[in-house]
Amino acid sequence: MTVSEALQLESVSPGSAAMNGAQPFDLWLHQHQARAQRLIERFVPQQHPLVPRLHEAMHYAAALGGKRVRPLLVWAAGECVQADERALDRAACAVELVHAYSLVHDDLPCMDDDVLRRGQPTTHVRFGEALALLAGDALQALAYEVLTPEEDIAPALQARLCALLSRASGAEGMAGGQTLDILATGGALSSDDLMNMHSRKTGALLKASVLMGAACGGFDSAHAAQTHAALATYGDAVGLAFQVVDDILDVTADSRTLGKTAGKDAQQNKFTYVSALGLDAARTLAQELRDKAQAALDTLPPPQRAASPRLRDLADLIVLRGY
Amino acid sequence: MTVSEALQLESVSPGSAAMNGAQPFDLWLHQHQARAQRLIERFVPQQHPLVPRLHEAMHYAAALGGKRVRPLLVWAAGECVQADERALDRAACAVELVHAYSLVHDDLPCMDDDVLRRGQPTTHVRFGEALALLAGDALQALAYEVLTPEEDIAPALQARLCALLSRASGAEGMAGGQTLDILATGGALSSDDLMNMHSRKTGALLKASVLMGAACGGFDSAHAAQTHAALATYGDAVGLAFQVVDDILDVTADSRTLGKTAGKDAQQNKFTYVSALGLDAARTLAQELRDKAQAALDTLPPPQRAASPRLRDLADLIVLRGY
Repeated sequence: MTVSEALQLESVSPGSAAMNGAQPFDLWLHQHQARAQRLIERFVPQQHPLVPRLHEAMHYAAALGGKRVRPLLVWAAGECVQADERALDRAACAVELVHAYSLVHDDLPCMDDDVLRRGQPTTHVRFGEALALLAGDALQALAYEVLTPEEDIAPALQARLCALLSRASGAEGMAGGQTLDILATGGALSSDDLMNMHSRKTGALLKASVLMGAACGGFDSAHAAQTHAALATYGDAVGLAFQVVDDILDVTADSRTLGKTAGKDAQQNKFTYVSALGLDAARTLAQELRDKAQAALDTLPPPQRAASPRLRDLADLIVLRGY
Repeated sequence: MTVSEALQLESVSPGSAAMNGAQPFDLWLHQHQARAQRLIERFVPQQHPLVPRLHEAMHYAAALGGKRVRPLLVWAAGECVQADERALDRAACAVELVHAYSLVHDDLPCMDDDVLRRGQPTTHVRFGEALALLAGDALQALAYEVLTPEEDIAPALQARLCALLSRASGAEGMAGGQTLDILATGGALSSDDLMNMHSRKTGALLKASVLMGAACGGFDSAHAAQTHAALATYGDAVGLAFQVVDDILDVTADSRTLGKTAGKDAQQNKFTYVSALGLDAARTLAQELRDKAQAALDTLPPPQRAASPRLRDLADLIVLRGY
């Protein structure tokens, strides 16, 4: 099922803007997924004379599929604050490169040991472990290269974007969450522990996507603090909702739809929102988090609120997605 | 043999400044190695409530030993351009964190599969492969956190330092060089290929250390271009010299002195400067590179040239070191 089909099957909630002026969300979605793809092809070309095999592995890891949720959040938050497009494009690409590197390392035998990702052999299955490790390392570095061009982004914004991305992906963010996940496998976590783990592992980078998009609009506007607070709450909610839905899909969808091995959580005895709360309560939680995200957007200053339909649509998409 | 003993055994070349005003180089060296240690302890504390086991592994990887050559180059280049100390400290720490992460990943079973580093079990031997992988990933992210504080460094300089560090450590720099190294193991490289591989694997980060220190002095001074060109040439030369000496020491020193497994290159059938040129010619090359580095410093504008004795001393140290 494609994202487009998922949206057609289940109607978007009445309160959200299915249309933004002349452009339906579905069209926006596909245009921006294609835009993400073009950026990846630009910054991670498949063929590169320098170290061809490494670039091939980096391209394989970053360019082949993916929903591009993080770049979409960057652009949607950027629309909300009338941000500069060249800066947004680089922020969107950088956050997706960090996401891509984390998947490559997460799939390695010493971590989740997974062989299937986006319906394809994982990077280490295709290129060997050493190259997968190095491709991940190089993708992380490339994210900061993309954020620090000689032109395109004002230096102060470059610094701000690097600050947001690094804090979201390091020990206090994604890498810390992945560590908690690994240490917790087989053991029992409380619901609070689980939320803490996921808020780092998945949530931190999703929230950073929203904040990086918002940062591209500048930090000096009259209502910057109010905007930042609303988008931070929104980012927390969609970040957590994304993981709750991931846990639900691991139980309810098949590998072919997911493009990765389904049922892996139970097989690895992972403590998920479904194992902690049960399927129905997990579904209720996902809906509540969507409502919380929408409510946060209602607290935006009026001009930003008026420009937030894509963020509303994305909160719906994250909860209603089928893969 | 300590660095200090190494310097006492072999007299520093007559042309270099063994003294800078009242402070002998040996004292400067120890003071700044201690300074590196304090910074590591500050930014990578052993105990941290968030994800204790991850921080323990990160601390183990970064804090236990090491010559701190990269931070020393940052400070020495910074002295040359009267750079701000707070910015220099962060640049010095960040580049060492990237170096530390690269060692952790390089030692993993899928890479060099080494069990000894700085005389201690390697990080994955001590903490397991998954934690070593994640500690490396988190150390790379931390480098950019350290470079993007809310205070201490002007935003434009933060962006410049992130740009230099990411380009030196990614596919065009360190990670690309490590890939060439892995792909070349067992095969034969020409001397040019070998130099290309090492200029990326080791040289790029050493050169970046010099350029990051220089960047902390600002980019707008009257002779900035001349200074940058001289220091770039110096950085290229010491970067390559470092690797040539590493290859020599792998043959001539024992594991205890090196703090890592000696004779590993030959055992893994690696194509090194010694295997390519022979021991005597490799030694000659190291001396030539030292001379080239010193000659580059002679092309600095007079005020910077007068402030460059530490860079001269470090070029000597890199070539004359015993481990």
